[in-house]
Amino acid sequence: MAANNFIVTPWEVEGKVDYNKLIEKFGTHKITQEIKDKIKKLTGELHVMLRRDIFFSHRDLDLVLSDYENGKGFFTYTGRGPSGPMHIGHILPFYFTKWIQEKFDVNVYIEITDDEKFWVKKKLSYKDAQKWSYENILDIIAVGFNPDKTFIFQDTEYISNIYPMAVKVARKINFSLAKAVFGFTDQSNIGIIFFPALQIIPTFFERKRCLIPSAIDQDPYWRIQRDIAESFGYYKTAAIHSKFLPALTGPTQKMSASKPETAIYLNDDEKIVRKKIFRYAFSGGQPTIEMHRKLGGNPDIDVSFIWLKYFFEPDDKKLKEIEEKYRAGELLTGELKQILIEKINNFLKEHKRRRKKAIDLIDKFKYDGSLASEMWSKKIS
Amino acid sequence: MAANNFIVTPWEVEGKVDYNKLIEKFGTHKITQEIKDKIKKLTGELHVMLRRDIFFSHRDLDLVLSDYENGKGFFTYTGRGPSGPMHIGHILPFYFTKWIQEKFDVNVYIEITDDEKFWVKKKLSYKDAQKWSYENILDIIAVGFNPDKTFIFQDTEYISNIYPMAVKVARKINFSLAKAVFGFTDQSNIGIIFFPALQIIPTFFERKRCLIPSAIDQDPYWRIQRDIAESFGYYKTAAIHSKFLPALTGPTQKMSASKPETAIYLNDDEKIVRKKIFRYAFSGGQPTIEMHRKLGGNPDIDVSFIWLKYFFEPDDKKLKEIEEKYRAGELLTGELKQILIEKINNFLKEHKRRRKKAIDLIDKFKYDGSLASEMWSKKIS
Repeated sequence: MAANNFIVTPWEVEGKVDYNKLIEKFGTHKITQEIKDKIKKLTGELHVMLRRDIFFSHRDLDLVLSDYENGKGFFTYTGRGPSGPMHIGHILPFYFTKWIQEKFDVNVYIEITDDEKFWVKKKLSYKDAQKWSYENILDIIAVGFNPDKTFIFQDTEYISNIYPMAVKVARKINFSLAKAVFGFTDQSNIGIIFFPALQIIPTFFERKRCLIPSAIDQDPYWRIQRDIAESFGYYKTAAIHSKFLPALTGPTQKMSASKPETAIYLNDDEKIVRKKIFRYAFSGGQPTIEMHRKLGGNPDIDVSFIWLKYFFEPDDKKLKEIEEKYRAGELLTGELKQILIEKINNFLKEHKRRRKKAIDLIDKFKYDGSLASEMWSKKIS
Repeated sequence: MAANNFIVTPWEVEGKVDYNKLIEKFGTHKITQEIKDKIKKLTGELHVMLRRDIFFSHRDLDLVLSDYENGKGFFTYTGRGPSGPMHIGHILPFYFTKWIQEKFDVNVYIEITDDEKFWVKKKLSYKDAQKWSYENILDIIAVGFNPDKTFIFQDTEYISNIYPMAVKVARKINFSLAKAVFGFTDQSNIGIIFFPALQIIPTFFERKRCLIPSAIDQDPYWRIQRDIAESFGYYKTAAIHSKFLPALTGPTQKMSASKPETAIYLNDDEKIVRKKIFRYAFSGGQPTIEMHRKLGGNPDIDVSFIWLKYFFEPDDKKLKEIEEKYRAGELLTGELKQILIEKINNFLKEHKRRRKKAIDLIDKFKYDGSLASEMWSKKIS
């Protein structure tokens, strides 16, 4: 594999992203209208994030759909690095994954990379990586996955079942390749250098095609998987890539755990949500009401509008109305923010309600649901 | 830690070795007469390999002996990379370790690094690494360890219990350090780069001082351990280092698995032993009997003599007699070889006898002996 230097690595996304250029650079494919039509044909509807090209790029999604049509089926794999509380940007892909599970009735595997986060975050204690694993798993369960078709596992707990295969995979990846793909340096610790081997293993959990929904910056991992999968008798993994949900503070910024104003956390209460959005949500409106009425707002750079478009206003007609009114200066920034605040607070209320119930479901997802107990009884090889 | 370039790495030993220089280079200490006297006082005797300075270098062996005297005790850790059949050079350190167990009544932990060997040997299949693990474990058990005080484990089997600690250790070792100590390059695979973390963990199996008997070339591993152990609340590991048993084919050569004539394998039969020693054992004798009678032989470069000195003629008086007669030309090369052949064939006969019985002991050493079952019930952290 050629050594390309990516600016977008799984650990760093900066500046304004040209998504068409990323498709070119990564060698992925655009999700065409044809593919969207096919999904709609198979499932009866299109998820809002597909309809609006939030999920915009893919690898082998067409083959996944063929496998589904032919009855061979597929499975889905995603993950979470447990280094802190989850925010809206973390959880939306899980909601999308849950939609895939519902519509295609597939198994979902969710890797909690407590080792990776400990390796990458120098200030994260091992104990806290465990604590955040627990907390994050509750949020993930709250999304509403099927407990008998979903397996959630922490690397440090499930290692025994995946290590033999990780040993085989690791022999195929040298430091030179890992460096080129992940941007490792001589200062990288030997844990994180080993990690790409571990993250590949869940794509081998079944002898079917694996579909990975993730932000486009995660693509490099799967390029190595695609280079080596067939030598082990497995499929090259398929992937479906999303754009980045921008930070509250600006359409070209990334949400940051160290800057709470950039994101809405899943445990933010209604008042904090209101305060954050009113105070920090980057606006495409004009400096004064008079100018706004006269010149209109710019929804393309307005984070409140972008968030509605990404997920929170799934009704296309309503979204179009909001956009037109905002552009026309009819809808004021404060009014637009008020719409988002209500949407998010409703969303969080429901999420928190389900999160409370999730405590009783942890064991099912991790150990004794149908899929979980099957996974604990088998070694991957 | 400073980045030193060692010529002696755990995977490459070449040329004639100046052992005093190695002590200087590695910063270890000579095993002094004082230490030997103390061991003799504590155990009643000195193992032949201590008496003859085959084990010649150490780290903190004095502290280990103090801990033993004070009743705190210590434990012992060694290992084997299962990439093929074991030869004499592999098994002698285990006989020495067994002596330590017997004399000090200590626990012995034996790591079978089936992951490491798979990573290092490109032609070794995963299946064969498992097969050789089994075969090698039989040879190790045949040495006669106490089944209730010895735990033999394969990395790929025991990983679940050691991984959490390996994760913590790995964060403390960056590629730069690993490269300096082990000679990794950009072509090294990400498995072997991770491996130093795994090999350190058994030094944390007990909250006592760990004594590692090994050839001096294995020292680099433990230098990293000694840098980080105390930050985890464990002891810097102690070590006792041996010289290399030379290849049959020459006193400055290393036994090589790909050159069967360089070594005596534990499954070589009596005829092969005889043939190998007569045909290949490098001789310090003269080209003709007449010259030998006149000029005498040189035991210092005669591999048959060196092997007798290393282990196979434990009687100091007899060895001295052999040496003097050989130097004087009284003892011919063929006669010297005959002595070694008999010693080795007796040794192998006994070893093979015990190896047959070892099959019934495997489970005790690996899973359900006193120490083994204790180890399976605990996670290292």
